[in-house]
Amino acid sequence: MMAGTKGKFITFEGGEGSGKSTQLRLLSDYLTKMGIGNVQTKEPGGTDVGLELRRVLVTGDKDKMDAVAEALLYYADRRIHLTQKIWPALARGEWVLSDRFADSTVAYQYYGYEHKIDRRLLDDLYAVAVGDFKPDLTILLDLPPEIGLKRSLKKASGMSVKELRHESRGLVFHDNLRKGYLKMAKAEPERFVVLNADKNMAELNEEIIKVVTERFGL
Amino acid sequence: MMAGTKGKFITFEGGEGSGKSTQLRLLSDYLTKMGIGNVQTKEPGGTDVGLELRRVLVTGDKDKMDAVAEALLYYADRRIHLTQKIWPALARGEWVLSDRFADSTVAYQYYGYEHKIDRRLLDDLYAVAVGDFKPDLTILLDLPPEIGLKRSLKKASGMSVKELRHESRGLVFHDNLRKGYLKMAKAEPERFVVLNADKNMAELNEEIIKVVTERFGL
Repeated sequence: MMAGTKGKFITFEGGEGSGKSTQLRLLSDYLTKMGIGNVQTKEPGGTDVGLELRRVLVTGDKDKMDAVAEALLYYADRRIHLTQKIWPALARGEWVLSDRFADSTVAYQYYGYEHKIDRRLLDDLYAVAVGDFKPDLTILLDLPPEIGLKRSLKKASGMSVKELRHESRGLVFHDNLRKGYLKMAKAEPERFVVLNADKNMAELNEEIIKVVTERFGL
Repeated sequence: MMAGTKGKFITFEGGEGSGKSTQLRLLSDYLTKMGIGNVQTKEPGGTDVGLELRRVLVTGDKDKMDAVAEALLYYADRRIHLTQKIWPALARGEWVLSDRFADSTVAYQYYGYEHKIDRRLLDDLYAVAVGDFKPDLTILLDLPPEIGLKRSLKKASGMSVKELRHESRGLVFHDNLRKGYLKMAKAEPERFVVLNADKNMAELNEEIIKVVTERFGL
């Protein structure tokens, strides 16, 4: 499906408050300045249907579904995101920058929740919904959870409690999440770049531009 | 999970207008009269969350998602249905009667849509969401599509067009659907019972009671 396209698919991953959305926006600005058409998007909820699914996922009683049902919904959202937005943009030659993609499901559902779901099951879902497509580059913004949560809660003062269901989990969860992400990055060094996100916005933006420039020979 | 329970899981399958919901209700009445606690349910939308997903599935532009995304959503609904309603009821020793279950996904998504989705993919999703659990009995109400559609459209005079998206498909679709169901029944004769649904309600109800009585030694 993707053969012959020149668009690149870059995903941003990391825990709460790691600065993904800001850094994604700054990279998009840079690419635009360089004359590279690009699309900013996110998961869950990167499409209209996805937004409806996101609402189902993040609101209401958190016991209303188990980890397997959650994973199925995240993958339904992902499939719609791919077919309606990501693949068409790449086919037009645009770059796609996504705030979270499949690694988030593994990090949160498998590592964060302390292995409550079978890892192979997530791999099977990936095969069903995504096939052998994957990001050209995944930027992992790494940060001690204490710092990320402080940032995230500060930013979130206007948000509803329901939207903060991840932030409200304990430090153990967020520590598992971080360790999980680092393991995943280690297992796929050709796809992942791990950056220390405990620095100011502009400095981190420069590092990301350097990585992207070198990786794709801009 | 199901070990040691005595509740039976019976599913009703068939095309539009085959009389599934009526026959399910009549069987439920009979079981209740026999002192057998039972739950009437359906897919999609057998739970509160499932109803929200059903709304996403049946409303709006039908091109908003592809067959794979649809299958993922149906399986998310199914997983929630199993964990919140079907398995707990069976564990309490009650019988569960469901208007549609996984066979509907294969019939509609694979056979009806003329093989637009990989059959193995649906089997993989079944393994992810349902595991090795399956209905104790599946009653297939078989009917020529011309008759079923006439019945269904008559009943549906008060329904919105959006709710009639299956009925509005051509006869070829409904004929594929019927043939698909019959193939599935032939492949699993120990689970399926095929009944000719082109007869009056009371007569069909008697046949179903006979099947259930013999199958489960009531």
